Amino acid sequence: MRLRLTPRDTTYFDLLAALAQHLVTGASLLAELLGADKEGREKLALQLRDAEHAADDATHSIMRRLNQTFVTPFDRDDIYGLASALDDCMDSMEEAADLIVLYKVGQLPDRVSEQVQVLHRAAELTAEAMPRLRSMEHLADYWVEVNRLENQADKLHRKLIAQLFDEVTDPIELMKLKEIVEVLEDAADSFERVANMVETIALKES
Amino acid sequence: MRLRLTPRDTTYFDLLAALAQHLVTGASLLAELLGADKEGREKLALQLRDAEHAADDATHSIMRRLNQTFVTPFDRDDIYGLASALDDCMDSMEEAADLIVLYKVGQLPDRVSEQVQVLHRAAELTAEAMPRLRSMEHLADYWVEVNRLENQADKLHRKLIAQLFDEVTDPIELMKLKEIVEVLEDAADSFERVANMVETIALKES
Amino acid sequence: MRLRLTPRDTTYFDLLAALAQHLVTGASLLAELLGADKEGREKLALQLRDAEHAADDATHSIMRRLNQTFVTPFDRDDIYGLASALDDCMDSMEEAADLIVLYKVGQLPDRVSEQVQVLHRAAELTAEAMPRLRSMEHLADYWVEVNRLENQADKLHRKLIAQLFDEVTDPIELMKLKEIVEVLEDAADSFERVANMVETIALKES
Repeated sequence: MRLRLTPRDTTYFDLLAALAQHLVTGASLLAELLGADKEGREKLALQLRDAEHAADDATHSIMRRLNQTFVTPFDRDDIYGLASALDDCMDSMEEAADLIVLYKVGQLPDRVSEQVQVLHRAAELTAEAMPRLRSMEHLADYWVEVNRLENQADKLHRKLIAQLFDEVTDPIELMKLKEIVEVLEDAADSFERVANMVETIALKES
Repeated sequence: MRLRLTPRDTTYFDLLAALAQHLVTGASLLAELLGADKEGREKLALQLRDAEHAADDATHSIMRRLNQTFVTPFDRDDIYGLASALDDCMDSMEEAADLIVLYKVGQLPDRVSEQVQVLHRAAELTAEAMPRLRSMEHLADYWVEVNRLENQADKLHRKLIAQLFDEVTDPIELMKLKEIVEVLEDAADSFERVANMVETIALKES
Repeated sequence: MRLRLTPRDTTYFDLLAALAQHLVTGASLLAELLGADKEGREKLALQLRDAEHAADDATHSIMRRLNQTFVTPFDRDDIYGLASALDDCMDSMEEAADLIVLYKVGQLPDRVSEQVQVLHRAAELTAEAMPRLRSMEHLADYWVEVNRLENQADKLHRKLIAQLFDEVTDPIELMKLKEIVEVLEDAADSFERVANMVETIALKES
């Protein structure tokens, strides 16, 4: 049981949901980018940068509101943490796209597409879950599933790293691919961090 | 002087001590793994993963309790920070073991064993110190000694990096060894972070 | 509007200003180090280490005072965050100097000097802004300009990475240079983080 002043400021739920929606866009663009040619990749990386800026703006709106409001629907630090973690998901996805273009890498291993598909699914689940913070209902399915996805991403990641060290003999190429794969793993970690925060918030409120 | 409601919930001390005890186990397994052959390493890495899961469960118990308790023996954020930092020590040790197996590295330089010995000593000191949080007595020796160990680890780390760049001519091998050595340095940093938090807590309470 | 007890403890402003002043020293030493020969670099790296220790001591003074004071001029967590972020700026600059010496790198690309010049300018602006936290006036110019500098640093960083991958064919050399360049980018990020915190604090107080 926690003390709370009414009325709750419900706009946070909308802002968090909007922020999470940018992640779905980001993950879609990233998936598309993997299969594109050089020009396509450059164009899509720019679109991803736009999506990242939009997410950034959404995060800042949340922060600004947090700093100017006395009453928040749940713990101020939790809203702050949630917005930051969502923003981190986006940053990693955008960074991966950026590196793929900057490093001029060719065809990426199939498992990279699988990694991105996992991110896309995590983004969808996250975007669907955010509005449910309002009622705090039906959230357990979400965090259980995202944790499962993160485990899957982690196994994929380990296999990918082993594969890269087995197959890529050019050290500079290896360096590039390893970094891209690790940044995608960071994105998966951030999605898990979001889910864990939602779990914590739900626990506190129960 | 800080306001406090009684009674203090003393179970946190037991939970933190149990968590720290897993770190001692982890450091022992890691030391053993360094000297083992391929099969031995794989077996020990799995055991370390079990220890890491146990530490994870201990951390989550602490977090869950924190979120459901109103009165904590000291600042809620400090308990949270302490548990997270202890968990980080374990994560880095487990990651090092995992990389050694995943990268199929051979004999590691002697200084890596020295690094792990320092971690083992830090883990022992940490596990011994946690129960003393209850009385807040005799903690200074602990944090002074862990800071000394971290300085030692830092010097070792620098020498190791210089040695690797001097001796290892295969860039891919260098990449692997460097990453392992850096992850071990992360573990040492996390132990220092735990000690610094204990110092902060003791200061606040004095 | 936030509740506040008087009198404010104004020493924090002096301590933060002193801490930021060490960053100006650090950035100057780093700029000098880039152009120096082997012996000069070693000497300057030691001086930078001294500056880093001085910044560390300043940070600890702030933390100690925070833990023992009930009334702070603004949110305790914000002072803590500000001191930590300032300390991070220094750590990254010192780490860059350390790596340049440890890796025995030769002449660095011109753009590295440009990176360091941006850091130096950010350090100066930061040191000038800290005393203005007292009145909370004329701070917007500071954070707008540091954000602009960080954008510039970011573009420089991307160009540098592309240049390194285009021009450096020895993978071990590439590994060294890339790490140095990334640590400098970390420093720029930390300066931006300081500016964003100042913006947040000013917003809360307005």
